Amino acid sequence: MAAKRKGTGLSLAMAIALFSMQASVVLAAEGPERNYDVFVQKLVEAGLKNNAAYQLLSELVARAPHRLSGSADARKAVELTAKMMDSLGFQQVHAETVMVPHWVRGQQESAVIVQGDTRRDRSLAICALGGSVPTPKNGITAEVIEVHSFEELAEKADEARGKIVFFNRPMDPAKLHTFEAYGGAVHQRATGAIRAAEVGGVAALVRSMTLAHDRVPHTGVMGYQEGIVKVPGSAISTNDADTLSMLLKRNPHLKLRLTFDCETLPEAPSANVAGQITGVEKPDEVVVVGGHLDCWDKGQGAHDDASGCVQAIEAVRLLKELGVKPRRTIRAVMFMNEENGTRGGKAYAVAPQRSSEHHVAALESDRGGFAPLGLSVQGDSALVAHVQQWRPLFEQLGTGRIEKGSGGVDISPIVATGVPGFGLMVEDYRYFDYHHSGNDTLDKVHPRELEMGAIVEALLCYLIAEEGLPPGTFHETPSQ
Amino acid sequence: MAAKRKGTGLSLAMAIALFSMQASVVLAAEGPERNYDVFVQKLVEAGLKNNAAYQLLSELVARAPHRLSGSADARKAVELTAKMMDSLGFQQVHAETVMVPHWVRGQQESAVIVQGDTRRDRSLAICALGGSVPTPKNGITAEVIEVHSFEELAEKADEARGKIVFFNRPMDPAKLHTFEAYGGAVHQRATGAIRAAEVGGVAALVRSMTLAHDRVPHTGVMGYQEGIVKVPGSAISTNDADTLSMLLKRNPHLKLRLTFDCETLPEAPSANVAGQITGVEKPDEVVVVGGHLDCWDKGQGAHDDASGCVQAIEAVRLLKELGVKPRRTIRAVMFMNEENGTRGGKAYAVAPQRSSEHHVAALESDRGGFAPLGLSVQGDSALVAHVQQWRPLFEQLGTGRIEKGSGGVDISPIVATGVPGFGLMVEDYRYFDYHHSGNDTLDKVHPRELEMGAIVEALLCYLIAEEGLPPGTFHETPSQ
Repeated sequence: MAAKRKGTGLSLAMAIALFSMQASVVLAAEGPERNYDVFVQKLVEAGLKNNAAYQLLSELVARAPHRLSGSADARKAVELTAKMMDSLGFQQVHAETVMVPHWVRGQQESAVIVQGDTRRDRSLAICALGGSVPTPKNGITAEVIEVHSFEELAEKADEARGKIVFFNRPMDPAKLHTFEAYGGAVHQRATGAIRAAEVGGVAALVRSMTLAHDRVPHTGVMGYQEGIVKVPGSAISTNDADTLSMLLKRNPHLKLRLTFDCETLPEAPSANVAGQITGVEKPDEVVVVGGHLDCWDKGQGAHDDASGCVQAIEAVRLLKELGVKPRRTIRAVMFMNEENGTRGGKAYAVAPQRSSEHHVAALESDRGGFAPLGLSVQGDSALVAHVQQWRPLFEQLGTGRIEKGSGGVDISPIVATGVPGFGLMVEDYRYFDYHHSGNDTLDKVHPRELEMGAIVEALLCYLIAEEGLPPGTFHETPSQ
Repeated sequence: MAAKRKGTGLSLAMAIALFSMQASVVLAAEGPERNYDVFVQKLVEAGLKNNAAYQLLSELVARAPHRLSGSADARKAVELTAKMMDSLGFQQVHAETVMVPHWVRGQQESAVIVQGDTRRDRSLAICALGGSVPTPKNGITAEVIEVHSFEELAEKADEARGKIVFFNRPMDPAKLHTFEAYGGAVHQRATGAIRAAEVGGVAALVRSMTLAHDRVPHTGVMGYQEGIVKVPGSAISTNDADTLSMLLKRNPHLKLRLTFDCETLPEAPSANVAGQITGVEKPDEVVVVGGHLDCWDKGQGAHDDASGCVQAIEAVRLLKELGVKPRRTIRAVMFMNEENGTRGGKAYAVAPQRSSEHHVAALESDRGGFAPLGLSVQGDSALVAHVQQWRPLFEQLGTGRIEKGSGGVDISPIVATGVPGFGLMVEDYRYFDYHHSGNDTLDKVHPRELEMGAIVEALLCYLIAEEGLPPGTFHETPSQ
């Protein structure tokens, strides 16, 4: 308290000065052989002169665009990223087998207003949600009830019987953070089919999870619940959701025919892929940097999450290019099956190889290959404060935001064992414009923004590999 | 020193805590009638629910895309933005006349390799630079000498006589900040024609100022020097610059024919446009927020700088929507002729109306309508420290970077009189991909990113209008 009382007398400028001095002291203690300021400059130059992450990304999404778990492209992506890491001279390149769900989209997906519209057979842009059962071969033809919340559906339960339930609450555009807007709407997609079936609805049709206004439907995972009949679940583009809503106001009894022929096959073998620079002093202490290799079958999953995968490879490649021989091992991991199972992340945490290893930290990039802003830190306050001592280095990259938050879905199983987790924080304005849709293609990724993410990852991995993290900085549930 | 010595004993976490407390104290002193935290939330919601800045932008660039000073579209833009501000209920909407240079691009622009290439009549994508003299009607046909610096040109002076001088040093991709990369290359465009003429060259052909690899030439202003013959100056796309460089390695004697028919007309009348919320307590104390209305005649100048204009209008509109009655006047100004003369900015600073006004601050957005990061502050260190006390408010917008830097070209004449200047700091990764080229169109602007810039501007204007700025925070030359 005394210190605090003294403290409030300090000027703001002085507080800032102290802040900077404190950080300098920490780093100065490392001695000239670890001049991190020079290292940061070298990373920037080595990265930005070639934007090699973008070259890796181009190859990955061109050769294996539709990497949904269990698919041929997912298999190709496993082989390709292993080959990439191998030809870049990574050590211990290997795959770790994991069984994954295998859902397959059909050839046909359509929604047509067959009755009650002034225009004949108006077609709406839809797609099946991941994990959905198919419609009957001739589709489901029914009236449509529009609702904006599960509460509204419960109130209109009687009215919903025998109808297609149209969940049309948009992501809230007034939220600053798009992930928060997503979080406030995505339960419609995740459990809408369950709620529809509970009231006797025959299908769920969900407004796409995006803030964009276009004719592109966005897919994503949905679930069923034991004991409740499985009705088909689908997503409708935002433009078409608006159109359907308008038409329903004119004629609440219009009839829609929904048709799609997706299928759930038996689980299939797949794999995580890893490669590393082995630590010279403590080879069994591991810093993991990763992304997920699988993606939805629309678009190319360029942002979600081919970007995270190639950034992990590029982070390690950059360190190799700079001749780094880290004290601890730095390992790039491509996790399989983030989108509909997290099997890869779970398997990695308990694989037999882990028993002889100690993980020091895990870092994931899974918010798109956009301009990086900083790091979210999943761990207790002491960990966050410790990492914030490195802020002056990250500020040189324009990425000085170091805040408590979540790491990533794939690393969460290993983080749950007490390993400090980190998430690459990026500009999120555009993410949901592309997310899980045909829009998520290579041309939406900017080579320099992507590369800068890899540079930030390389820096964090290097700092942790060299300095370690103090004991006692274990995981607690993050506030976000 | 005592305080400092004590200070270094403080933990980093404590320094951060002090930092936050200090800021809270300052704001808490304002009392509940100015709950800025709530105000920030209201701004975000009012802005993002409609993205009105984007609607203004769409209208401006659709109706007046080619707003080069003296053009019909520039005139239309003056009328249109005055009408916009008028219909939004701004006060004192008026134009302030200013004479501007009037350069006009011709109908024809071409560069053809007419001799020494394996392919017949290969065409390269070029455009005249702003302010250039035309080529003769039948073009200039000559050999080409490639150089990468003025020093290299001086060394090869004898060789350059009678040739087209091809300045081909790229913006340095290894620089983190694209504006720095631009600053390190743009003298080739600005004075290349002078340097070419000095050694007897017949024209200047300059690699486009962009980090993108495409076939789009980027224009921009160039100058001549009294006593040195005026030779035509042009820009070549980066892809074609690479091609030409490759072809010159095969055959240093190939011949290029450059043809363009631009023209410099007599100066023309034009105007700045202004509209405001008049302050209720100190109407003669003015906070200016602006952008420049003119742009190059390629593309639509959507980022450069229609974005800055509509953000200024939107900032004032947002404050009106929230019912703000500010103590001091907040004025949106569309400056004319930033691109080739800064006549608008200069005229604004000395217009007769200024004599009865006192400017408290000037803020400009002229780095594109990208995701905002914070503010660059043009003034002395005390001013920067003062504004940094507001950082917790800007951090709520994800724009906590408040750093010493330049305000903007248009406000520099008024800043030079001692008025504190502010520049909206934005992500600059993509700016030069579009800058001064056919790429700078509406589709490159993201509605939410644009709106967030307007929200940041509205917040700063409001804080200054309410709180003022302390005396003694006058301008000193910024370090950048």
